[in-house]
Amino acid sequence: MTITRGLQPFPRAEYLRRLAAVKAEMARRDIHALVVNNAANVAYLSGYTVSGSWGSLAQALLVAIDKEEPVLVVRQCDAPAAIHQTFLERVNVIGFSESLVGKSGADGFDAVIDFLQEAGMTKRGLGLEVDYLPPQTAEKFRVRLASTSIIDCSKAVAWIRFVKSDIEISVMREAAAIADAGILRASEVIRPGVQEADAVAEIAAALVRGGDGKPGTSIPPIYLCSSPRTGTCHIRWSEDVFRVGSQVNLELGGARYGYHVGLMRTYSIGPPSDRLRRLHEAEVAGLEAALEAVRPGATCSDVANAFYRTIKKMGFEKETRCGYPIGINWTEPTASLQDGDMTELKPNMTFHLMLGNWIDEDFGYVISETFRVTESGAEVLTLAPRKLFELD
Amino acid sequence: MTITRGLQPFPRAEYLRRLAAVKAEMARRDIHALVVNNAANVAYLSGYTVSGSWGSLAQALLVAIDKEEPVLVVRQCDAPAAIHQTFLERVNVIGFSESLVGKSGADGFDAVIDFLQEAGMTKRGLGLEVDYLPPQTAEKFRVRLASTSIIDCSKAVAWIRFVKSDIEISVMREAAAIADAGILRASEVIRPGVQEADAVAEIAAALVRGGDGKPGTSIPPIYLCSSPRTGTCHIRWSEDVFRVGSQVNLELGGARYGYHVGLMRTYSIGPPSDRLRRLHEAEVAGLEAALEAVRPGATCSDVANAFYRTIKKMGFEKETRCGYPIGINWTEPTASLQDGDMTELKPNMTFHLMLGNWIDEDFGYVISETFRVTESGAEVLTLAPRKLFELD
Repeated sequence: MTITRGLQPFPRAEYLRRLAAVKAEMARRDIHALVVNNAANVAYLSGYTVSGSWGSLAQALLVAIDKEEPVLVVRQCDAPAAIHQTFLERVNVIGFSESLVGKSGADGFDAVIDFLQEAGMTKRGLGLEVDYLPPQTAEKFRVRLASTSIIDCSKAVAWIRFVKSDIEISVMREAAAIADAGILRASEVIRPGVQEADAVAEIAAALVRGGDGKPGTSIPPIYLCSSPRTGTCHIRWSEDVFRVGSQVNLELGGARYGYHVGLMRTYSIGPPSDRLRRLHEAEVAGLEAALEAVRPGATCSDVANAFYRTIKKMGFEKETRCGYPIGINWTEPTASLQDGDMTELKPNMTFHLMLGNWIDEDFGYVISETFRVTESGAEVLTLAPRKLFELD
Repeated sequence: MTITRGLQPFPRAEYLRRLAAVKAEMARRDIHALVVNNAANVAYLSGYTVSGSWGSLAQALLVAIDKEEPVLVVRQCDAPAAIHQTFLERVNVIGFSESLVGKSGADGFDAVIDFLQEAGMTKRGLGLEVDYLPPQTAEKFRVRLASTSIIDCSKAVAWIRFVKSDIEISVMREAAAIADAGILRASEVIRPGVQEADAVAEIAAALVRGGDGKPGTSIPPIYLCSSPRTGTCHIRWSEDVFRVGSQVNLELGGARYGYHVGLMRTYSIGPPSDRLRRLHEAEVAGLEAALEAVRPGATCSDVANAFYRTIKKMGFEKETRCGYPIGINWTEPTASLQDGDMTELKPNMTFHLMLGNWIDEDFGYVISETFRVTESGAEVLTLAPRKLFELD
């Protein structure tokens, strides 16, 4: 009995377009075959989002420059999911034996290397995403393929997926609507006397129910940092109960088929302090200045400095960077919205303009937007009001 | 202004006990300082569960054999969270500069190496968790510390945390109650006509609200593999609507302060097929046989083979292993419940006895229990009925 192919978020032509860009880069680097091991890159090139076991399990997508489709090598029990989720012909999904799981010494990368050798993919340049391999695995490739020229391609695919297609942008719009739903739900459930976890339960549920009739396809981490923890950025939530006077910094994301859109807002139960209100005003002014600086040809540094200059005029500083490219599995490891990053913006690059500002150990504020670069400026994908939510 | 210390799930003495075991192992390996980089190991030895940025960010806990407390080196903006969450004196939390974030070349490990040198921790043997470092980071340690003897300790801490203390078991009992709540909530919300995401929204909310008055502290991945995807193991959920005749395989977990307890159950909307019922009966019999095989001195192989033998007699086989040690951040990378693993069981080892059985591409079944080894047998931590849930 065979499994059916599932709903495909993208047509085959979209995956072939992405692969063509990767193959062009492979040609430039004189690489005949590329071993794609980073989970986000695998999703980008195949549609496979079964990432629970990436990192602990050895799996890879193998792109040959002279073959239309890549080959996905996964643990045997995940092969049906690969057939169901990806655009690949079933012959291009290879399950490796369970005897390679939970052992020391051999693992799925031995099956990957076996396949590369049998398919004649080791005779010319071989690209590896070395940064995403444990050192002993990188060494295994070097030892077992001693006569193959191995080239590090750790960030090659990430740079390609940095610029989205219109169809990717439309999926990110769906994720943005989900992030909006989460932020708005939070404004309904954060109330004095409510336990933080009970509010987060409602927020998480909203991120799965989704927005505009499209459910979330996974639950990105939710960070709810409330008084006295507003100076922290990555605490999930506590066992405290909200009180009048509590401030709540919330970071969450919407997810559709691996694509993430991040969103941050700050809530105050009762009137905010003057300091918080002034910081909010400076941050919103800075956010608007940063968005105004966005246009093709401007640099990441330009955008960050527009923010830094604006809040400085208003009496504040921010130590952390102003954000990063966002897409599959949240952060992309390429450019950075910070002073000195001279990466030039191009249409359909997408960024999480992350303006969380942790000023003191016990005082911080968050706001962010996810935007795409347009032909002439920036388009913010989310619709949540850019306000400091005052709750009763 | 300084941040306050938060609720501590464990007393200081518990962390010192764990550190004493690590230092004894360091002494055996002639190691003076250990760089702990695996997020689960850092949580184990400090209480720090801000793991969102582990993996993409370079951070570490540094254990010196002659110092009572380790030193936690994190990104500056995460230092307040470290002070809040861990048992460490604030002088032992070091924030590294934001100038090391989002750059190529230098990263937080440069700050780690600087600290090791300044603290005189590089003069004798230095342990690294090499498996959890990118190859270029492992190389950076080798180059920058060329005269230091570097010893790979990738699994040393994982083997120590394999055996839990009674207080860790009590935290896992709390996580188990949460997993139970999720499985029971699923039996209420999986109904014909309900969209899968709407059911998952309720299940996720239950995992945060928690059980026995203790909220979940994070949301472990939820895998809901329904007809026609019951032959897959790691699909989160689909955009389908449940129908009469649908089968639903559910894997979820409860989490408390990083400690995870896994649980799987199968649901049938309407009467199950004869094949499903027979498989369920074989699996429950196998599960009971496996639990009966658990006692100190028995091996992981003994437990797995008790299961395999039982289901074989009843006409079934299972390709995948029968589970793995479970604790902080789910799977522990040590033993494996499979034929040939001669690891001997000891009291307070904890396992996810994972009996998911994906028989055909389009047919599988799941059941599991999380148990601890007692002085004389096994204690299952969860209470969910060991049944095939038949829903209307």
